[in-house]
Amino acid sequence: MRTIWWDEKSRAIGMIDQTLLPERLENIEVRSVEQLCEAIQSLRVRGAPALGAAGGYGVALTAARSAATDPAALLDDIKTAAGVIRAARPTAVNLSWGVDRAVKAVEEMRGSATVEEIRAAALAEAELIAEEDVSINKALGDRGASLLADGDVVLTHCNAGRLACVGWGTALGVIRSAVAQGKRISVYACETRPLFQGSRLTAWELTEDNIPVTLICDNMAGMAMRQGLVDKVIVGADRITKDAVFNKIGTYSIAVLAKAHGVPFYVAAPISTFDLERSEKDVEIEERDADEIRRLGNKKLAPADVKVYNPAFDATPLDLVSAIITERGIYRPPEEMPDLG
Amino acid sequence: MRTIWWDEKSRAIGMIDQTLLPERLENIEVRSVEQLCEAIQSLRVRGAPALGAAGGYGVALTAARSAATDPAALLDDIKTAAGVIRAARPTAVNLSWGVDRAVKAVEEMRGSATVEEIRAAALAEAELIAEEDVSINKALGDRGASLLADGDVVLTHCNAGRLACVGWGTALGVIRSAVAQGKRISVYACETRPLFQGSRLTAWELTEDNIPVTLICDNMAGMAMRQGLVDKVIVGADRITKDAVFNKIGTYSIAVLAKAHGVPFYVAAPISTFDLERSEKDVEIEERDADEIRRLGNKKLAPADVKVYNPAFDATPLDLVSAIITERGIYRPPEEMPDLG
Repeated sequence: MRTIWWDEKSRAIGMIDQTLLPERLENIEVRSVEQLCEAIQSLRVRGAPALGAAGGYGVALTAARSAATDPAALLDDIKTAAGVIRAARPTAVNLSWGVDRAVKAVEEMRGSATVEEIRAAALAEAELIAEEDVSINKALGDRGASLLADGDVVLTHCNAGRLACVGWGTALGVIRSAVAQGKRISVYACETRPLFQGSRLTAWELTEDNIPVTLICDNMAGMAMRQGLVDKVIVGADRITKDAVFNKIGTYSIAVLAKAHGVPFYVAAPISTFDLERSEKDVEIEERDADEIRRLGNKKLAPADVKVYNPAFDATPLDLVSAIITERGIYRPPEEMPDLG
Repeated sequence: MRTIWWDEKSRAIGMIDQTLLPERLENIEVRSVEQLCEAIQSLRVRGAPALGAAGGYGVALTAARSAATDPAALLDDIKTAAGVIRAARPTAVNLSWGVDRAVKAVEEMRGSATVEEIRAAALAEAELIAEEDVSINKALGDRGASLLADGDVVLTHCNAGRLACVGWGTALGVIRSAVAQGKRISVYACETRPLFQGSRLTAWELTEDNIPVTLICDNMAGMAMRQGLVDKVIVGADRITKDAVFNKIGTYSIAVLAKAHGVPFYVAAPISTFDLERSEKDVEIEERDADEIRRLGNKKLAPADVKVYNPAFDATPLDLVSAIITERGIYRPPEEMPDLG
């Protein structure tokens, strides 16, 4: 099962609507760039690697559905749509990366290709991004599994699993690879307020795979570590700059707690997550709607107009990161970082 | 407005049903020990000092409503009820403390008092506990206010406010006293999963009092500190042993984060919270129902049968505590602790 795919019959992007989990597993068809942006902003599709594929498929969708009849007009349509898609979630570098990669594939054909050839090339590049995501995650998982010992208890935050990717997962991919190697691994999943990706998605995914999982509230991570219940932390990443790992809000607190308790703190992320020309201060952190914290569905959790601070991500400086696990290898920052040249 | 009181007309304990906040402010009448235990376990009344008053009023309620016609039988009824009430929330030392104080007041009368005199004495002691709570909190607040400077931003967790006490509050009492002294104080309130006492109660209380408050998820405390948004932390306590402060789950994580960021971490608690003959290992931490984390009302947040770890409290070792603010004075642990002899 994949999280996001191309449906040739309906010329649409197919995806699992992750906002409906764990209540029900349901797919949706995305037929326009507007609908794609809504799906990204509403987190129907989320997770850095899945957003890379969503970016690529967004370009393919534009190419497939554009009314343009000549190649130059089609490429202009694609360029416009690319800007719209990129802006849907500015912190997630993979979204832009996926968009840019598909745009580059078609831009290289400018002046030498037909409309149909451009459409085919956009789709081929998007499919390649999706295929590569699965194979990259498996490679990353296999490398990372060497860091896990039989019997380890791993704490994770948010969902850096199959649902965050096209398949397999990054942080959970490492756990899956370790389990596939015959190691017994169990997991503490932080529920991940405000949107509960840990309880809704990670706990669901691991339960489906029969990997033992215990759900905790985010504020229990410190106590669990102090009680010696956690051997290692593995989280994903949305962007890795030269000085910090950007990931779901709450990751930084866990990193500080891990350091204080001598628990290794690992980040699992494909090379496409790295943005080493930028530093922390260059990255804008998306602030999300106050009602994500003040309400849950119809239930009022706080005074209706109370002020809220709701950053979607935080930045963890590299000196709190024991290792970054990638498909190319394991890096020990801040000294060791991949060479992207 | 008080949180808990004696209603002579209906011979019942009156209390604000805190589970209904912030939706609506509604009082309930508690007419039996069973109903009192239910109210305590369901957190209709919660907070260490309020539980002290609840314990005292529980003894008064038993005395008022017992069918016993002779003093010895009435004292036996009280003794039985006292055991039941104490067991309703074992971690909160104040509950037992309030029960024991009212029981002691009537036990001293054994052999020398009528049924009516015992009833009157139980109620008088309960009322005294409630009165003292307010005056103790004001004394504590006034002492603690010396630690706050004009313009300070204070982070707090859970609700150690008016609603946690009979009135005024402990952690929020310090803030109220500082505001009463003319200092401009603003507050970050951690929402406090799983039961949202921070968003439901603290944000509500402070909004009612026009004290500026910003609500955050528990996992945002680290980021807020790293961004320099927090000058001080003040929390309450459910029990203070010779080596640790027991308070709402999540307090320990905040204490570690405060230490890592050089932010003073203060505990505000009346002397009745101290239990210096015991150490951390002697205290049982209540584990609450898994569905507090797996569901919210009718909304399913996680797979229905996923394993959950849901401790209600955690223990913060004293070396992470910058000061404990009490009605008698400010103590700098671990070296300085109140002399309870």
